[in-house]
Amino acid sequence: MKISLKEAAGRLREMEDVYILSHQYPDGDTLGSASALCRALRAMGKRAQTFCSDKIPHKFDFLFEGLETQSFEPRCIVSVDIADEQLLGEKLSSYAGKIDLCIDHHGSNTGYAADHCVCPDAAATTEMIYDLILLLGVELDTAMATCIYTGISTDTGCFKYTNATPRTYRIAAEMMEKGIDAARINRLMFDTKSRARLEIERRVLDTMDFYLEDACAIIYVTKKMVAESGAGEDDMDGLAAMPRQVEGVSVGITLREKKDGAFKVSVRTTREIDASRVCARFGGGGHPAAAGCVLTGDIASIKARLVQAVAEEMGKRP
Amino acid sequence: MKISLKEAAGRLREMEDVYILSHQYPDGDTLGSASALCRALRAMGKRAQTFCSDKIPHKFDFLFEGLETQSFEPRCIVSVDIADEQLLGEKLSSYAGKIDLCIDHHGSNTGYAADHCVCPDAAATTEMIYDLILLLGVELDTAMATCIYTGISTDTGCFKYTNATPRTYRIAAEMMEKGIDAARINRLMFDTKSRARLEIERRVLDTMDFYLEDACAIIYVTKKMVAESGAGEDDMDGLAAMPRQVEGVSVGITLREKKDGAFKVSVRTTREIDASRVCARFGGGGHPAAAGCVLTGDIASIKARLVQAVAEEMGKRP
Repeated sequence: MKISLKEAAGRLREMEDVYILSHQYPDGDTLGSASALCRALRAMGKRAQTFCSDKIPHKFDFLFEGLETQSFEPRCIVSVDIADEQLLGEKLSSYAGKIDLCIDHHGSNTGYAADHCVCPDAAATTEMIYDLILLLGVELDTAMATCIYTGISTDTGCFKYTNATPRTYRIAAEMMEKGIDAARINRLMFDTKSRARLEIERRVLDTMDFYLEDACAIIYVTKKMVAESGAGEDDMDGLAAMPRQVEGVSVGITLREKKDGAFKVSVRTTREIDASRVCARFGGGGHPAAAGCVLTGDIASIKARLVQAVAEEMGKRP
Repeated sequence: MKISLKEAAGRLREMEDVYILSHQYPDGDTLGSASALCRALRAMGKRAQTFCSDKIPHKFDFLFEGLETQSFEPRCIVSVDIADEQLLGEKLSSYAGKIDLCIDHHGSNTGYAADHCVCPDAAATTEMIYDLILLLGVELDTAMATCIYTGISTDTGCFKYTNATPRTYRIAAEMMEKGIDAARINRLMFDTKSRARLEIERRVLDTMDFYLEDACAIIYVTKKMVAESGAGEDDMDGLAAMPRQVEGVSVGITLREKKDGAFKVSVRTTREIDASRVCARFGGGGHPAAAGCVLTGDIASIKARLVQAVAEEMGKRP
């Protein structure tokens, strides 16, 4: 059943022993939402505990500061920022079909929960958690404010994306007045590069080549480059976005050498060209703006095949 | 004479035929301030024109949309976001000693103008322009709002830095309600890299060295590197933020070779150490988190002097 924020607050008020589930590959919004809601329910004297299928990256540790683990059998299950049950991930997959309340801001929400409260106008699910905390009459403390701000900031790319509204900014302002350290949060989320990330970035930038009158840029990452830089998996995050950020590039391609020597290909495009069509030519797929496939061979020949495919999709000569 | 915003509004109200000066190497704040103030004065029926010693980078063109050039002899001179007359730059240097009103948010402002209105708590000078427009009773239109938002956004690194206050966010929210396209502004300011920018970034990243147990990182930009990359002045923007972004770095330093072979030094710090104190040792100044100075000599010896100064400020051994 589709319910309003006010009704969702009513449901939460009646709940006891609540498990709060975040989505797999967790981000600042799903974790911030879970932690803030958990804190609010505990402040109401309830037992509540957050869960996530994946290990929570260390950079999000601050969201859970002072939130001790509670062990209990759940009587109610709430999901936050989860558009589809498949995003529960492996460890939490057994909760599929058992979720009492879903709180989410994705317009694409599949309505899998007994009750779902979905606000697509909210820039982040934590904006909804902010509303719920007010509706529940819980005093919003610094820790909750930190969680709410983090969800907003991460889901809007630090207030950069089109989803940030005047209300988003005003909630952020109010959270700052609760004593949060917004600059520290943003520095952790956006401005901190591990030394290994710096090293891999240096190497990857040096591989960037341009094709098709500079409309196509290709970078590559070999196993050797990763080993030399000391980069772990989380240091690789977002590298694939780099080629397309260059002015005039409408197709950005990243080749990443896999364990077996084949290359995982990520294609990112602007709206003039469909990335999934490029990748479909090689047995891959994805979205119009971001797709992938796997290719084998040496880097030069893989590049040549990709450039040829892109040229054909663009109606250009390679 | 030091004057309040209210007094500054009074001065502006009495002015006619106003030249508004921005600082050299112009940024979103000095240009946004100049354009917004110019528009406000014109809305009051006055003649007003903006000036800058340097060519205005194309990415700032949108700030001046619809603002036609007016030719007249000035009767009043106003500077915006200029902490020191030396920052007028070559072309505008003849106005030194002749500035009637300075509107600025730099705590280090040298008080060079006949009247100076300085609000160090403002995240951007455009925050002050916002106040002045309200005080002047001018209706704040979309074009002025675009300028004000741009100054705020660029001077706070898109709401990331410690200077962004709840008021900063609330002014941004209000500007959005004036119909600005905040996402487009931020995309232009933060998410697009020119090819030359990419080239200079590659080279600069390769110069990054670490000192003081990796708490201090230094990069440099020589005239040769700039020439090789084809980078213009606008491609250099924000390079100085790069060293401090590396995990564990609390002092990030950028050396930029000037025409005369001396190096412009930019120091960016986290809150543990005062950048302006480091720079004051070399006759420079600025804010606690971002300051600058000029040093001569070869890169190695400049680095050594800076590392020594940072070590002393940090109470560490170099």
